[in-house]
Amino acid sequence: MHTDAVRLITIDEITAAAERIRSAAVTTPLLPSPLADPDRPLWIKPESLQPTGAFKIRGATNAIALLSGARSVVAYSSGNHGQAVAYAAKLAGLPAVVVVPDNTPEIKIAATRGYGAEVVVVPITDRESAAKAIAAERGAALIPPFDHPDVIAGQGTAGLEIVEDLPDVDVVLVPVSGGGLASGVATAIKARRPSAKVIGVEPELAADAAASLHAGELVRWSAGDRARTIADGLRAEPSELTFAHLRALLDDIVTVSEDEIRATVATLASRARLVAEPSGATATAAYLHRAAALPRGRTVSIVSGGNLPQTQLAEILTSQQL
Amino acid sequence: MHTDAVRLITIDEITAAAERIRSAAVTTPLLPSPLADPDRPLWIKPESLQPTGAFKIRGATNAIALLSGARSVVAYSSGNHGQAVAYAAKLAGLPAVVVVPDNTPEIKIAATRGYGAEVVVVPITDRESAAKAIAAERGAALIPPFDHPDVIAGQGTAGLEIVEDLPDVDVVLVPVSGGGLASGVATAIKARRPSAKVIGVEPELAADAAASLHAGELVRWSAGDRARTIADGLRAEPSELTFAHLRALLDDIVTVSEDEIRATVATLASRARLVAEPSGATATAAYLHRAAALPRGRTVSIVSGGNLPQTQLAEILTSQQL
Repeated sequence: MHTDAVRLITIDEITAAAERIRSAAVTTPLLPSPLADPDRPLWIKPESLQPTGAFKIRGATNAIALLSGARSVVAYSSGNHGQAVAYAAKLAGLPAVVVVPDNTPEIKIAATRGYGAEVVVVPITDRESAAKAIAAERGAALIPPFDHPDVIAGQGTAGLEIVEDLPDVDVVLVPVSGGGLASGVATAIKARRPSAKVIGVEPELAADAAASLHAGELVRWSAGDRARTIADGLRAEPSELTFAHLRALLDDIVTVSEDEIRATVATLASRARLVAEPSGATATAAYLHRAAALPRGRTVSIVSGGNLPQTQLAEILTSQQL
Repeated sequence: MHTDAVRLITIDEITAAAERIRSAAVTTPLLPSPLADPDRPLWIKPESLQPTGAFKIRGATNAIALLSGARSVVAYSSGNHGQAVAYAAKLAGLPAVVVVPDNTPEIKIAATRGYGAEVVVVPITDRESAAKAIAAERGAALIPPFDHPDVIAGQGTAGLEIVEDLPDVDVVLVPVSGGGLASGVATAIKARRPSAKVIGVEPELAADAAASLHAGELVRWSAGDRARTIADGLRAEPSELTFAHLRALLDDIVTVSEDEIRATVATLASRARLVAEPSGATATAAYLHRAAALPRGRTVSIVSGGNLPQTQLAEILTSQQL
């Protein structure tokens, strides 16, 4: 188990995943930002425009495609992974059960049901055990949100697309929660453009990955501490598998404040015409508010998702007048 | 003049334009909408994601690229065309003056200045004459918002991309104001996919093109009447040139109410994670609220732009709870 847990995924697994996800995921464009700093031009990679509103469709589709013999799937998720598994399972013709914590925004639960999945709501600390119990009872395949090579490889296809569209990219900013997206994207970027820097971004209030990278080993923050951030998609913590990737591949990790995340949700709406959820705005918040901590050069910021309650978006836009 | 005014543009002019605009405009993706009606699956073409937030960059870039010997450019515009000319001129290394009517949202004026253009604000009825006077005084080339073959050919590249990405498209919904986008897109669609229906969409309160098409000749509505709609980008009226295209190429034109436009701005934010201005939401409003008036089949709706004041977006989101 330990040996398997620390094998890093390869670029070949990502290029194979890219073929598998082609019909389910959108090849999101790189959007040039005309008002960026001249010495660090910015492109935004809007994963918020995926069919389920987040990058998670990439990993879920790849993992489901690689299942052998499963007749149904189950997932636990703060929302976006659940929607992705529901959608990917439907495309694959498999029934899906999605276990969500009881603090999940209603919009995400409704959307998950809308994609045809059965939704089970449990206390946040029970979600993994509940999902495993359902998998055992029903003989369903568990699709983890990040702690699996096939999921990481799927998320890495976003990095592959970045280098294909901008071969001379210098800096990639990627949000870090469980670390699946950052692990996959960093693998792709370092394989195809080794000189580019890959920088993780976390909310200050859920900066356990930053603490872990600085300590050189996994540092655990309580679920209660991690739940303080508005970025509800960034409240998970890395696994041994993703931490091994982050430690090997990230050049740095920076943190942003809650105010900076909220301001960036408003800026992305006004300047990039994108609806980003707080988690999705986090990497761009680093570009806008942590310039001194970042390398210069051609920068790509991943907007990881865009699912937030309409009332929350309206509240942020009203309070964050530019 | 008359003979020249009614020559319809060709698909070859559009394919040539596609090459010219490649470095300035984004090839916007077709975004599948997973919650659409099964008998008329929907893809959204988000032109709101262009660098200046609207499709206008296509026509402006093509027209400027085809100028011979001009040392500066001038444009009149309710906003999005002005920003596009400012941006395209900057990329081409030419100074730009943009004449805007005095009811233009401040966000559009600020953005136009942000792209390096000089902005001149005049009463709405004076904008064309003021622009022509400036062009004459300074020897600048006037880039019209829609009444020119090079502009129409540039806008048509959006239609070319639709057929390239979805070769079996059945229905294309396109907003109509001056008619440049609809003329260009319809030319491309009819050349490459003759069986597809191209349907124009207008606000009921600025339905002069619908009235003209039903009458078989240009019917003029007063500027005051056209100014009633919230869709401030759809207050222009077709020219002889664009009307000739619309009459020859559109299969139908439908209208939507102000409430439907506002509701669709909210729906696009929540379901498609796109910030659309009211004009930009109009075609999708027809998909959502005029199903009985539309053909079945694989449908593409063009979201033409996403520039609206943050306060207006917040107000619409607050009042249009889904």
